[in-house]
Parts: sequence; structure tokens; C-alpha cells
Amino acid sequence: MTTTWDDIAVGAVSEGGAFAFTADSIKRFAAEFDPRPYHIDEAAGAATFYDGLSASGAHTFAAWARLFYELTRDWGAAAGARIGEMRLLRPVRPGDVLRLRMTILGKRPHPRRAGFGFVDLRHEVLNQAGEPVLVLDIASMLERRS
Amino acid sequence: MTTTWDDIAVGAVSEGGAFAFTADSIKRFAAEFDPRPYHIDEAAGAATFYDGLSASGAHTFAAWARLFYELTRDWGAAAGARIGEMRLLRPVRPGDVLRLRMTILGKRPHPRRAGFGFVDLRHEVLNQAGEPVLVLDIASMLERRS
Repeated sequence: MTTTWDDIAVGAVSEGGAFAFTADSIKRFAAEFDPRPYHIDEAAGAATFYDGLSASGAHTFAAWARLFYELTRDWGAAAGARIGEMRLLRPVRPGDVLRLRMTILGKRPHPRRAGFGFVDLRHEVLNQAGEPVLVLDIASMLERRS
Repeated sequence: MTTTWDDIAVGAVSEGGAFAFTADSIKRFAAEFDPRPYHIDEAAGAATFYDGLSASGAHTFAAWARLFYELTRDWGAAAGARIGEMRLLRPVRPGDVLRLRMTILGKRPHPRRAGFGFVDLRHEVLNQAGEPVLVLDIASMLERRS
């Protein structure tokens, strides 16, 4: 059963997912995409403000993409090409497990494509203590019921 | 020689880097972070608006992180925790090679920490045809000359 734009209720909040970070996964991602010393070396991380190894913000963002995918698997043709201001609020460390809380802020028909609509979403990525580590807003395009 | 906040010239434009995408790297990233069919399967991609395999937006963002790192290796303690509106303008496909154009929009002392300042940056990630694929603004914090 596919969720269409018509099924989306403004104000609804959904929450779920579990994306785990390990020292190995943090270092592996950073080696490819963001090899700053405090993302790939415990000693270098210990010397920073964060007092330990921390994940690249790009890694946290990629984890958000996975959590978003998991939480909206039944959505028809979700896509989002414009992301509003994104804030990285806390470091993500080895052992952290992230989940996603998604709030439907609003919805509107697509101005030109009759078969589609937009939903405006607030995303809060939370760690296992319930603290937000990443917050962003995005508009997703969904198919409308035909 | 470390580049400090004091060395940054407003209006300066720098460009560089080369981040290559392959069908394998696109599928591998997507399998971990964004396993939508059109990011992991050529046939599914061919059936979309994009007419072929395309990279996850999170993968393009991660490539930006690497290009930013390369272009600012000599900056003292660059960090950015708040990213302004981000737009994914074109799909990134196998064979694409991305580079970064970075423009210094402005600079300002840190309001509370005397040894640091902010620089406001416009980032344009371009493909090998010079077309922008990702645009975002970010404020980075740099050390000031002591």
C-alpha cells in the first residue's frame, strides 16, 4: 500500500529507525570523505573541544538519509532537492545510535504538475539520550492519488 | 603555513579538486545510506526522470565535504555547524567528476571568542561540464592571528 500526498496529515509526528555509529564506521567514512584528524584518530579527537573521536557531519547527514528512507519506505516517489537550513547540534560519537523524528509541517499541491504535491517536513535526528544531533527542514514531492 | 581568519579576502574565489563517481561507488554508498532503486540499479534508474543511475544526494554532499577539505587544508581549525539552504540542481551520474568553486562572501569576528572569526562561504559543486550540481552556503569558523 503506497502512501500518497493525499494520505499525509499535517501535524503528524512519526519516529523510528536505529542507525549505529562505531569507531570503525566513523573512521572509514571520514577516510573517504572528510579526513580531518579528529574524525580518523582518537588521540587527535581527544585534543579537540569534542574530547574524543567524532563523526563527520557528512556522515551524520548520510545517516539521516538512511533513517528518512526507512521511515518513508511506503511513500510514492518521495524526492527532495532543496534542504532548508541544517544545523549540526552535537557531535556523534562511537556507540551512538540515531533515530529520526519527522513532523509534517504543511502540504501543498505542486504548482505545475497535477499528479504531485509537496509536504514540508521538519526532521530531528536524535541520539540514544533523546538529544537532537541534526535538525533540518525539507520539502518532499509525493504522488497524488489518481 | 596556516591560513588564518585575517588572511581571508572577501570576494576571493578559489576552485579545485576532482571527485570522481563510478557506478560501483554510487551503488556502494546508496546500499549503506540511501538504497532507493534508482541509486542502486541501472534499470530502475533508466525508468526515472533522470534516465539512468544517479547518486544519492547524501553522496554528492559527502563529495562536497571532501572537496571542501581539499580546498581548505591549510586553514586553521575550520568548522561549520550550520549550513544554509542547500540545493541539488542536477543528478550526478557514473563518470562524473566534481570540483568545487568557493567564494568568500564576507567575514566577521566571532561575537564571543576573541581568537576566532567567521567567514561566510558560497559553495558551488560543478561537474566536468561546468554545470552546478550542488550549491550551499556555510559559515566557517577560523582561528585569528594571535
